[in-house]
Amino acid sequence: MKTLAPSLPNIPWEEQPSGCRDLVWRYSENPIIKRNQAKNANSIFNSAVVPFNGQFAGVFRVDERTREMNLRRGFSEDGISWKIDDEPIRFIQQTREPVESEYKYDPRVVFFEDRYWITWCNGYHGPTIGVGYTYDFENFYQLENAFLPYNRNGVLFPRKINGKYAMLSRPSDTGHTPFGDIFYSESPDMVHWGVHRFVMGRGYSPWQSLKIGAGPVPIETSEGWLLIYHGVLLSCNGYVYSFGAALLDLDSPWKVIKRSRSYLLSPQELYECVGDVPNVVFPVACLVDGETGRMAIYYGAADTVVALAFGYVHEIVEWLLYEN
Amino acid sequence: MKTLAPSLPNIPWEEQPSGCRDLVWRYSENPIIKRNQAKNANSIFNSAVVPFNGQFAGVFRVDERTREMNLRRGFSEDGISWKIDDEPIRFIQQTREPVESEYKYDPRVVFFEDRYWITWCNGYHGPTIGVGYTYDFENFYQLENAFLPYNRNGVLFPRKINGKYAMLSRPSDTGHTPFGDIFYSESPDMVHWGVHRFVMGRGYSPWQSLKIGAGPVPIETSEGWLLIYHGVLLSCNGYVYSFGAALLDLDSPWKVIKRSRSYLLSPQELYECVGDVPNVVFPVACLVDGETGRMAIYYGAADTVVALAFGYVHEIVEWLLYEN
Amino acid sequence: MKTLAPSLPNIPWEEQPSGCRDLVWRYSENPIIKRNQAKNANSIFNSAVVPFNGQFAGVFRVDERTREMNLRRGFSEDGISWKIDDEPIRFIQQTREPVESEYKYDPRVVFFEDRYWITWCNGYHGPTIGVGYTYDFENFYQLENAFLPYNRNGVLFPRKINGKYAMLSRPSDTGHTPFGDIFYSESPDMVHWGVHRFVMGRGYSPWQSLKIGAGPVPIETSEGWLLIYHGVLLSCNGYVYSFGAALLDLDSPWKVIKRSRSYLLSPQELYECVGDVPNVVFPVACLVDGETGRMAIYYGAADTVVALAFGYVHEIVEWLLYEN
Amino acid sequence: MKTLAPSLPNIPWEEQPSGCRDLVWRYSENPIIKRNQAKNANSIFNSAVVPFNGQFAGVFRVDERTREMNLRRGFSEDGISWKIDDEPIRFIQQTREPVESEYKYDPRVVFFEDRYWITWCNGYHGPTIGVGYTYDFENFYQLENAFLPYNRNGVLFPRKINGKYAMLSRPSDTGHTPFGDIFYSESPDMVHWGVHRFVMGRGYSPWQSLKIGAGPVPIETSEGWLLIYHGVLLSCNGYVYSFGAALLDLDSPWKVIKRSRSYLLSPQELYECVGDVPNVVFPVACLVDGETGRMAIYYGAADTVVALAFGYVHEIVEWLLYEN
Amino acid sequence: MKTLAPSLPNIPWEEQPSGCRDLVWRYSENPIIKRNQAKNANSIFNSAVVPFNGQFAGVFRVDERTREMNLRRGFSEDGISWKIDDEPIRFIQQTREPVESEYKYDPRVVFFEDRYWITWCNGYHGPTIGVGYTYDFENFYQLENAFLPYNRNGVLFPRKINGKYAMLSRPSDTGHTPFGDIFYSESPDMVHWGVHRFVMGRGYSPWQSLKIGAGPVPIETSEGWLLIYHGVLLSCNGYVYSFGAALLDLDSPWKVIKRSRSYLLSPQELYECVGDVPNVVFPVACLVDGETGRMAIYYGAADTVVALAFGYVHEIVEWLLYEN
Amino acid sequence: MKTLAPSLPNIPWEEQPSGCRDLVWRYSENPIIKRNQAKNANSIFNSAVVPFNGQFAGVFRVDERTREMNLRRGFSEDGISWKIDDEPIRFIQQTREPVESEYKYDPRVVFFEDRYWITWCNGYHGPTIGVGYTYDFENFYQLENAFLPYNRNGVLFPRKINGKYAMLSRPSDTGHTPFGDIFYSESPDMVHWGVHRFVMGRGYSPWQSLKIGAGPVPIETSEGWLLIYHGVLLSCNGYVYSFGAALLDLDSPWKVIKRSRSYLLSPQELYECVGDVPNVVFPVACLVDGETGRMAIYYGAADTVVALAFGYVHEIVEWLLYEN
Repeated sequence: MKTLAPSLPNIPWEEQPSGCRDLVWRYSENPIIKRNQAKNANSIFNSAVVPFNGQFAGVFRVDERTREMNLRRGFSEDGISWKIDDEPIRFIQQTREPVESEYKYDPRVVFFEDRYWITWCNGYHGPTIGVGYTYDFENFYQLENAFLPYNRNGVLFPRKINGKYAMLSRPSDTGHTPFGDIFYSESPDMVHWGVHRFVMGRGYSPWQSLKIGAGPVPIETSEGWLLIYHGVLLSCNGYVYSFGAALLDLDSPWKVIKRSRSYLLSPQELYECVGDVPNVVFPVACLVDGETGRMAIYYGAADTVVALAFGYVHEIVEWLLYEN
Repeated sequence: MKTLAPSLPNIPWEEQPSGCRDLVWRYSENPIIKRNQAKNANSIFNSAVVPFNGQFAGVFRVDERTREMNLRRGFSEDGISWKIDDEPIRFIQQTREPVESEYKYDPRVVFFEDRYWITWCNGYHGPTIGVGYTYDFENFYQLENAFLPYNRNGVLFPRKINGKYAMLSRPSDTGHTPFGDIFYSESPDMVHWGVHRFVMGRGYSPWQSLKIGAGPVPIETSEGWLLIYHGVLLSCNGYVYSFGAALLDLDSPWKVIKRSRSYLLSPQELYECVGDVPNVVFPVACLVDGETGRMAIYYGAADTVVALAFGYVHEIVEWLLYEN
Repeated sequence: MKTLAPSLPNIPWEEQPSGCRDLVWRYSENPIIKRNQAKNANSIFNSAVVPFNGQFAGVFRVDERTREMNLRRGFSEDGISWKIDDEPIRFIQQTREPVESEYKYDPRVVFFEDRYWITWCNGYHGPTIGVGYTYDFENFYQLENAFLPYNRNGVLFPRKINGKYAMLSRPSDTGHTPFGDIFYSESPDMVHWGVHRFVMGRGYSPWQSLKIGAGPVPIETSEGWLLIYHGVLLSCNGYVYSFGAALLDLDSPWKVIKRSRSYLLSPQELYECVGDVPNVVFPVACLVDGETGRMAIYYGAADTVVALAFGYVHEIVEWLLYEN
Repeated sequence: MKTLAPSLPNIPWEEQPSGCRDLVWRYSENPIIKRNQAKNANSIFNSAVVPFNGQFAGVFRVDERTREMNLRRGFSEDGISWKIDDEPIRFIQQTREPVESEYKYDPRVVFFEDRYWITWCNGYHGPTIGVGYTYDFENFYQLENAFLPYNRNGVLFPRKINGKYAMLSRPSDTGHTPFGDIFYSESPDMVHWGVHRFVMGRGYSPWQSLKIGAGPVPIETSEGWLLIYHGVLLSCNGYVYSFGAALLDLDSPWKVIKRSRSYLLSPQELYECVGDVPNVVFPVACLVDGETGRMAIYYGAADTVVALAFGYVHEIVEWLLYEN
Repeated sequence: MKTLAPSLPNIPWEEQPSGCRDLVWRYSENPIIKRNQAKNANSIFNSAVVPFNGQFAGVFRVDERTREMNLRRGFSEDGISWKIDDEPIRFIQQTREPVESEYKYDPRVVFFEDRYWITWCNGYHGPTIGVGYTYDFENFYQLENAFLPYNRNGVLFPRKINGKYAMLSRPSDTGHTPFGDIFYSESPDMVHWGVHRFVMGRGYSPWQSLKIGAGPVPIETSEGWLLIYHGVLLSCNGYVYSFGAALLDLDSPWKVIKRSRSYLLSPQELYECVGDVPNVVFPVACLVDGETGRMAIYYGAADTVVALAFGYVHEIVEWLLYEN
Repeated sequence: MKTLAPSLPNIPWEEQPSGCRDLVWRYSENPIIKRNQAKNANSIFNSAVVPFNGQFAGVFRVDERTREMNLRRGFSEDGISWKIDDEPIRFIQQTREPVESEYKYDPRVVFFEDRYWITWCNGYHGPTIGVGYTYDFENFYQLENAFLPYNRNGVLFPRKINGKYAMLSRPSDTGHTPFGDIFYSESPDMVHWGVHRFVMGRGYSPWQSLKIGAGPVPIETSEGWLLIYHGVLLSCNGYVYSFGAALLDLDSPWKVIKRSRSYLLSPQELYECVGDVPNVVFPVACLVDGETGRMAIYYGAADTVVALAFGYVHEIVEWLLYEN
């Protein structure tokens, strides 16, 4: 088994605590970003980070004290201590005519070809998938929305597949959406999208029985795309968000090779169970060191703070293939 | 004001009853198609007809006696008496790999360039917009679904706009969808769709306060695209479907020039108020005689039968522009 | 038993059909007002009539073809054939500053002291009780809303009680309100209202198990106020509106002397079961001939048309007292 | 194929109309019982009839004009013209202590061993299955409820199976129950019930996608038990009740041999589509002439009246086995 | 800018923590009242305090261990340590006849003219606004309910406006009310209420998008009435209650001069996020020192305990006017 | 007053904390079982323990990390430190044919006659009551389900009553059931159940207003059966589970002698308020020392862990009889 990702020797890392047999373990200093750490912030969570110039850059979901949702830029030397901007990112519109964006949240970022692509949940008469990019984390550009409303959790693959750009997403409704499955779509130009394929649905086991959605950008391995994804269970007191993993076919990613019946992480720590939305762990980004297979998973906790967890790509893939 | 449509001298037609001042009036022999008129049919409604070889052809929504929904072909000499097939249309799939179609309903048909394009609500892990075509009403071909689920009421424009194929649609949810607005999308190839624009929303007046959706293929006039669309009001006893009209900009059809505050037709006759779904008039197709401006609107009544109504393009456009 | 109302010898009237043993019977020419009988009308129903200058006048709920709700004036020589205005009534506001009125529906009218008082459901950031008056059915004046939202079915008593104006009403919510009881309130000046008392609630028998509301202006009798009121049952296919009667204490009308377990009329005729809202009979006005006890009850049918039913005050009161 | 039922030469009967190819056809004089035909009746529907002393007797659901639900006795010479009592049946309680019965509806009746067994939906802190019997249609006796709440549509088999009494039922909730499957239970004594088995569930085809419930007492044939059952589809305007058929294993009736994908009858006539609950056909009793296989199916229409339909046992069984 | 309130030198007070730039900061010893601090108490929260005889008195919402809701009296020397009665307050009814009070909660208290006026949510066939008073915190008197049900959060102004008593309130429904706007009403006599005016609605920014309600008695300033109010956001796991501020016109308090887009305080501390209702801060009373502008805001936390926060009137007013 | 239970001198026990006047007090080392204490466990809660061979044995609800629900065996020397199996219990089916069990949860255990009887919520086309037994906690046997779906909280009495096995249960629906009352049923053979009696319903006081359910096996006393039961209150943020007590007639246990208006314990500690389902205390088992009346109540906390509370039988019975 081989992880097809560049090496990242300075990946944030902490060894598995002794006695812990879990495939994914939490950072001992969680949460790494507090709710009020940026100016006027009500909460900072569900955020995306990437290696950048030998250090790290990120796009952060920062809900204002109005509870409006927007994206801000941040930088970090070590991937753990972050300096987040005082103001939201302003995207320069590359569309034929300006397209309004009522709100932005839950970003994903991936570098490929020549730039950092950004996708997010974009408010345009309902939630849909916003698409943008930056070359330098100074200027940010926005394209057409990828889909009609209503959609959330749009996640790009880190390279073209069959010569086309490829995206996972989760069709939704206008509210708190009590259903949801993952689909795959292709595009020749990052503007027009088609060839829609069902990938996998809610319901495989109880932690993912209400809805599911793609998490970080899929990780390429010799055995397939490793997808970390969240799943939701409906208790009598609301939604519980956990996360697990799946392995998708390299050339036909809508074909599921394996999928986790157990979750990898569920809300159990106080900062995951108490906050603006109790009982949420929501994975959004994953740094990978291709050489060692080390993973640093950034996840939102309780829709309030950012936390970090660790694991190894090969351990999770092997668990999916042989044990799950 | 000029209707930019070919002449159709043999359009089904009946003059306005004397004393009637309505812009749209019903055919006196309604319904033209009974619920059990085809083999194994529970109901026949929400169907699309076009001129064909000097006569008429159509794609009909026929719900089986299992209440499964599918499309059948039909032919007519006069557009009023129809002979409908005993079996559903079988589409030959033109997709990279077979794409399942759990059900099909509410078709629209339009001829342009070299073929008859067909769109419909297609079951693919939820409702979305199916796309197909035929050259001859003998062989039918099916392309990729235009959008991710969940969507209904996909309606093509009768020519390219700005060099792109253009479609209206109505994003939905998985059930009986208590909301709904009309959007516009473009495609270079009838497969990949993007450049999504909000056209108009529910709520302009009470008959259209819950949701709206495009009806027949838009009619080109010198003043803009004339769109017949349905609107839904939520009473304490359920949905009431009526229909009205709007005028869209010729080059930027997502810009609404005028929109009707009053409906043109609402469910009032017994065959519109009593049936599988009471209180529904649902317009799906419209024949136009470009020379005289005569319109023959085919609409589903009570989700049970097909009915016919008449009007003049110029009267409706002028009402929209100057009186509404 | 004595009916304390003036004589009205020209009351619309039709004798009980032979063989009919019901306390209330329908007019044989129902509906008396068709849905499209007035200009631009979608429907005419739930309307209030009074004797006027030896003939009859009324305030009619006319829903426009936009499905907007408003009130129009009408006159009739016989109480059966009505001439209804082409336009809504324009009320001259007698308030300190103009108070908006988003919509008006379900009027009641009663003459006392020197004028015709009108109450209705008035849209002011939600439904509440509008109050107005006219001396002559030419000029109409509007006062402050009687209550905060959310309220419907405000019905004045035809004289002061204990020196105060008195009104029944039915507190509601913002939508189709799946609950509802009748309350009594007093006012020294028709502007400020207080001394709120619970009168009676939903649930006495199944036809009135979901909600209830006052119908026509209460009729004074030696035994108490005779109140015709509607009740709603929730079936799996929606609300069913029937009507019954109650007898309220003359001096303390919040004290219920008797209440009907059976309905007096339920939706059974085609014009009551089919229309914009199926299965509705909704009583709004009642002419009474004090000399004979004859009653002519005007009720909306299927939220679409106006119908008429007949009965005798003393028969209903005696049934309430001794048989029900 | 053989129908294992006694001969009933005086079964109500009307031949299939010429041109009709349906397996089940309506009586031309439907409805056979009008809504107001009994004293104080709001409606008469969902009722059970049996051969009795060479003529016919029945237990009728008669909703009072209070809309309270109860059972009344009726007799008929020909099975078509019925004389229904003025008052509800009073059951003599055979229980250890009196058990209250808040309401009764939807009876089934079957003769076996020495008496006529009656089951119905019985109000006991929610709906459950009431059990009673009569020897002579003069005195009626009531046993313990068969099950805990919440349950409806309890239907006995016409003989013991494996030495036990056997019943089908449909577990429910407290309201209008948006789900429902058919189960089988056994009893040694008509009081204690156990050995509960799932028989079949909602969802086999759309007309039965929301819930299903047993209809008349199953008919024994050489191929299995023929069960007529109702199914419900949820439209945007409420529930639509149709009926179909299934064939159950003779010795293990929880094993389904065949089940109809199409319905046999759906609400299409005015008396089925308009009434207290629009769009309901609800089969409750079935007379069978074992010699000819003729069936007379009694069904409630629109929760308002009783109607009659005809068919042949062997035709339906063969359709189930070979064509459906 | 001038605060028009008497001086209150002994107001409970704690300086802003160094480094804190928030306009409102929490007391470091929160919560000041524990849930079980009074006899038989399940929880003590949403309570109202006033200066009294140089010390402090209050009316407290104490939910019993039956979870019944009622009001109790309390006294304090310093406004922080409270001694709460063992039994609910018994109000002496000043109404024409006794009016039942099924429950009482969420009191407000204000001194003006000659007495301490108390308003609360009063159970009378649903929630409405109870009105009472005391001269001495020994005897308490109850008047008529101010409004018909359904209403909550009734808050008096601390003086007459335009010669009339004035109250803010929030019309509701019978349950957990998923909507709600603030209205203004006037009364000549504290019994009859009218001249109802819409003040402001839900939806100005997300933290207040579901519903809003007045908090403490408005504070008079030279720039207008300063109103602290709560707002609710609906997450997928329920309601989140925060609070902000608005400035209302002095003479026409239904005219909003300014309104906060950001909240002033949202649930973030453990005692605000964990309890009988997680994620609630609900402001109910505010002591003001007119001389310095110091404010001590008493708020319920998690529907379980009482907490305290501080700020300056002029800072909040200036923020509303110039920065918000 | 006398507790009719054997003596259990080694019952887990901790004296009432000084100053505490509550009838039930928590163990100071709660929770006694952590959520991850068994292999692959997401959570361990709602579990049943009994004295066994001078020590203790138990049946535990262990939700897997798939969030699937199942039962495991455990042993303990002191009733506080538990060793729980790595795998679920496998029941040997004693039914005529295998009956599937989709999930198992919320067990109760009681010894009588010759074996340990076990009941639980069993998934069989919806939740119902599973019944099993063991002689030795090595081999476990499963009988027929006691009832049709939908049911939960089936609790056996610890001896036959009137010569019949006796069970309490709580009929439900298919989801999170927003209603629920306790019923009593009898069986001659632990397979067939009948003679169903309503015991008590939701709504006696607010903490038990939404639904109620039996907790541990009832405790026999000279005054009646002491039943600890849970009750649920619906807040705007979900269900709150507390518990109280009732006294049932010894010979006719469906007759309630007394019932608690106050709860005995409600969720107040962090481990009761934070977890997979916040705000839950759910009593499932109760050890009793007949000699001293000491009780050790095992309850699930927050659907995540097992906690322990203590009290005296006679104190609770006397409180019910004389003080409550």
